[in-house]
This record gives sequence, structure tokens and C-alpha cells, in this order.
Amino acid sequence: MEHSLIYAFPAAFIASILCGPLIIKALRRLKMGQKISEDGPESHQAKAGTPAMGGLIIILGILVGVFPSLRDKFVRPDMLAVLILMLAYSLLGFLDDYLTIRPVRGIRGISSKPKAALQFLLAIGFVYWLSTTGHQMCLRAFGANIISGIWYQIFAVLFIVGLSNFVNITDGLDGLVTGLSFLACIPLLAGMAAYAFTPMLLAIMGACLGFLWFNTNPAKIFMGDTGSLALGSAFAGIALTSHAEIVMIVGGLVFILDGLSSALQWAVFKYTRITTGTGRRVFLKSPVHHHFELSGWPEQLVVIRFWICGVVAASIAIIGVSSGWW
Amino acid sequence: MEHSLIYAFPAAFIASILCGPLIIKALRRLKMGQKISEDGPESHQAKAGTPAMGGLIIILGILVGVFPSLRDKFVRPDMLAVLILMLAYSLLGFLDDYLTIRPVRGIRGISSKPKAALQFLLAIGFVYWLSTTGHQMCLRAFGANIISGIWYQIFAVLFIVGLSNFVNITDGLDGLVTGLSFLACIPLLAGMAAYAFTPMLLAIMGACLGFLWFNTNPAKIFMGDTGSLALGSAFAGIALTSHAEIVMIVGGLVFILDGLSSALQWAVFKYTRITTGTGRRVFLKSPVHHHFELSGWPEQLVVIRFWICGVVAASIAIIGVSSGWW
Repeated sequence: MEHSLIYAFPAAFIASILCGPLIIKALRRLKMGQKISEDGPESHQAKAGTPAMGGLIIILGILVGVFPSLRDKFVRPDMLAVLILMLAYSLLGFLDDYLTIRPVRGIRGISSKPKAALQFLLAIGFVYWLSTTGHQMCLRAFGANIISGIWYQIFAVLFIVGLSNFVNITDGLDGLVTGLSFLACIPLLAGMAAYAFTPMLLAIMGACLGFLWFNTNPAKIFMGDTGSLALGSAFAGIALTSHAEIVMIVGGLVFILDGLSSALQWAVFKYTRITTGTGRRVFLKSPVHHHFELSGWPEQLVVIRFWICGVVAASIAIIGVSSGWW
Repeated sequence: MEHSLIYAFPAAFIASILCGPLIIKALRRLKMGQKISEDGPESHQAKAGTPAMGGLIIILGILVGVFPSLRDKFVRPDMLAVLILMLAYSLLGFLDDYLTIRPVRGIRGISSKPKAALQFLLAIGFVYWLSTTGHQMCLRAFGANIISGIWYQIFAVLFIVGLSNFVNITDGLDGLVTGLSFLACIPLLAGMAAYAFTPMLLAIMGACLGFLWFNTNPAKIFMGDTGSLALGSAFAGIALTSHAEIVMIVGGLVFILDGLSSALQWAVFKYTRITTGTGRRVFLKSPVHHHFELSGWPEQLVVIRFWICGVVAASIAIIGVSSGWW
């Protein structure tokens, strides 16, 4: 095996597990404690004060893991572009996390419209880079071109914005997104097209595994938008650049379904309020991971069962890759 | 990919997740509830009454998963032998579980000496089969023969008895052995030598994943000796037959270290009692997973952190396989 490959996973793991306690201590000292959303289950109020922005640990682990691969000429431009996309999304998430905890002149967090606008802008920039650097602009699956040209560009922008928000929405239980992100890397690794991203995928896996040590229930730190937007945009960038969009959609199905459950809840509520006068809800609380918690599953049970679903999703994606479906 | 390979994992998973509730209900009705060992932490007393013998679900899943592969001429004899070893160990574990819950004429469980004797007998039988069917009787690693001949045969017997007992000892926290067993299959799959066992390894992974749905904290069922002796002997049998002994030792390091922690505790206690008059303990309680619990880690935290160690062990084993060390 190549040295940069053997290096990426252990280096990212060791970096994140060693820096974890330092960053947790620093964030605690800076009083960067999470304000717990009042939308979630009441039991989550006990989590108030746990440091957020733990995504910094993941980012650090990934950068340490991919560092030697940046010299590889074959890998450099594609991986650099995805790293820049990831860091930009992470910075956006960091600002949101920071302003939520420390409002500046009354501004608490970044409100949803400018945040979405920035996400779209970054995604458009990335897709523009993709289209001007000789990447095939089409979505292939089952041996056929499904969409191409301008439609593919629109799809690609929505893919980045959508996936990063789905991962962000899923991030509501201790260790949930961390474990699912680890799992989502495996089918991408299995796809030969991801070769250029092998070091980065291994680094993401190592960084998530190290972060999980502190992030699993009961969590000592949360990744925050700093982490979830970074992971979501990195997955989208890797999938688009290496044409593994369907692998990513199938392997990341838990993110997507959990994210869509929020959209479904919202849509059904709006629709029934307009048609019947009273809004109805599909789930006790959305996203659906809160629904299971309110149905009586302890938090750690929901997380492990969602991980099991993540393993199943990853397996289907791998079977599809090795059967040449996508 | 071959059909029997695509089939094994999903079939075993679906079989164990579908039969899970039925077997849990049946065992509850038969009042096959676990007596909780008084050696463990007090918090575990709440688990009394949870059905044991959940290993039946795993065995069922594995058998469903490997069924079509039994017709494959290349695979048949080796896999059959390992399956028989696994079923024999599982039966021994089942009898122990049964007699622990329902003592017959005052006999509660199988006491340790006859149990060990039966384990040795079964292991000797398996190694005899191994030596008479053209398998190379030597242990290779780092490109050299480490032991061979009669020493290898002794090693092989100890390997089967030792590994099955280590897995058995590790089985003390919800989901711990189930998750570690899933992980231990991955480096064995990565070793090309395991080709003949690919369907069986995939079936073990699927069965464990399905069983984990019910076995994770808070567990609705325990695997019991029925499961842990089956898994340990299956791993040992696969590793010996496909000459992946070192892969197994490295990839299953968490089982081995957790098991050895009990031996260490016992040895230090005996030694210090003889030399100083009062026995001293290395750990608050052995095996070491109880030590961490008594140090204040919640059960689910110990489990996930041991799983993380399991992923690290599996990764080292895989790096070793792909670098040709073992």
C-alpha cells in the first residue's frame, strides 16, 4: 500500500484523539457552551453548556491526515478544491455556532436566508470550478446518462446545499452524525472512481473515529455546524468530483431520510393547516430521530439503530458499486 | 460479484432481525431470563430477567446466510468443518446457559472443569481434522514459519479454546461482543486467504448486525454462552483453516486483552496473597470493561469506546494484510 494511504487514517485518528481534550478544555474555558434548541426533547436540556464547535477537532484531524497527499500531483487539484469547499462551509458553520453562543450587537446566529444564500454561492463557485476543469458534467447510473449539461450543474449545486443541510439536520443526537459519516466513507472508498480521494476519505474516517471518543453518549463535545456543514459539503464535493453521486445518495440515505423527515413534517403541517384549518404532524417531533426518542427509545438506542441503518445503506451502496449499477 | 456473496450478508441480517422478536418472545414465555452474575457491578442487577441464549438468533442468521454456499464444491468441506465446530461450541454454551437458568437435579450450569474438558476435546477433534485433510500445519508471519508440526497443533488447540473463552469473558456489556465480532470479520475478509470463508464471514456480520438491533443498550436479549462460544470458535476455526491466525489475533485484540485482564487480575491477586499475605487487585473489577464502568463511565460509553478500539485493531490488521506482514 502507498505510504500516504497507510498514513492518512492513523494520523487523522491520533491527531483528533490527542487534540480532543485540549480543544474541549479551551472551548470550556472560552465558555463556548451549546445553547440547546427548545425544539428538541426536554431531556436534552441537560446538555446545555457542553461545548459546541467540536467540528474543529474533525477538521484538524482531516488536515493532518491529508497533508502528505497534497504533494501528490495526481491528487492535488481535485482534493484541494474539495478541501477548500469543506473549509468554507466549515467557516460558515463556525460563524453560525459562534454568533449563536456569543451574539454580536444583538445578532444571534446567522439567520436562515443569508446562511442559505452563502451556501448556494459557495456551491455555485465549486460547480463552476468543476465545469471549467475538464470534469464530465453528467450523472451516470445503470449504464446510462441520467442528466447532463446545465441540468447536471443545477443538480450539483442542489446536491451540495442539500447534503450539507441534511447532515446538519441529522446532527441532533450524541455521536449520530459522527458514526454515520464514518460509515458513509466506506462505499465511496469501495468505488474505484474515488481513488483520488482515498487519502481524504481515510482521513475523514480517522478524524470521525477519534472525535467519536468524546462525542458518543454522554457527549463531552458536539461537532456543531462547524462539523456537520464541513462533513456534508466534503461528501458532496467528493461524490461530484469522482462521479459517485448515486453511491453517496445510497450510502448516505440515513442523512437524507432524516433530513427529509423534517421537510415532510413541515409540508404536511402547512398543507393540513391550509386545507383543514388545523396543522397535523406526521411525527411526534421532527427530524425523525426525535420522534423515536419521544416514543420511548433512550438516546443511545436511537443512535445505534440509526448506525445499523447506516451500515445497511453502506452495504447496499457497496453491492451496487461491485455490481456496476452505479 | 457472485450471487452467494451478495446473498450472505443481507440474508443473515434479515433472518436475524425478523426472527429476533419471535425468539425474544419465546424465551420470555419459557422464562429463560438471565441470572445476573454477582461478580459484576451492582447496576447490572437491573438486567435480571432479560432473556439469555440470544446466540440462537445469531446462529440462525449465520445458517441462513451460508446455506446457498454449502453447494459450492470449493467451499464445502472447510466451511462445513468450521460450521460443525461452531455448532458444537454453541451447543455446549447452550447447555451451560440452560442449566444456569434451570438447574436439573441441583446442577446449576456446567462447572468449569468439565466445560473446559469438552472445549479441549472439540478443539482437538477439529485440529485432528485439519491435520488429516492436507492443511499446512504451520504458522507463518513476516515471511517466515514461526511454528510448525506438533507445536502448531498444540498452538491450534489452545487458539480455539483460548479465543472462544476470551470472547466469552468479553461478553459482559450490552452489545459489546456483538459489535466487536462484526468488526473482527473485516480484516479476515480483507485477507485473500479467507476467500473460502467469505460467505460465512459476511453471514456472521449480517447476523451480528441484526442481533445488535435487540442487543444494544438497553439490551432486550443477551447472546449468552450460546452466542459467545459460537462466535469465538467460529473465528478460531476460520483463522486456522485459512491461515489468518495473526490477522485474527491483531483484529481481535480487544477480545484478547479484555480476556487477559481477567487472567492478570487473578494472577496478581494470587501472587500478592502468597507473597504479602493480602491479595491485591490491578483493576477495580475484572474483566477490564467492568473496571471502566466502576470508574464512572456509563455502560454505553465503555461499549462504544471498546468498539473504537476494535476499529483501530481491525485497521492495524488490515494494514498488515495489505502490506504482506501476515
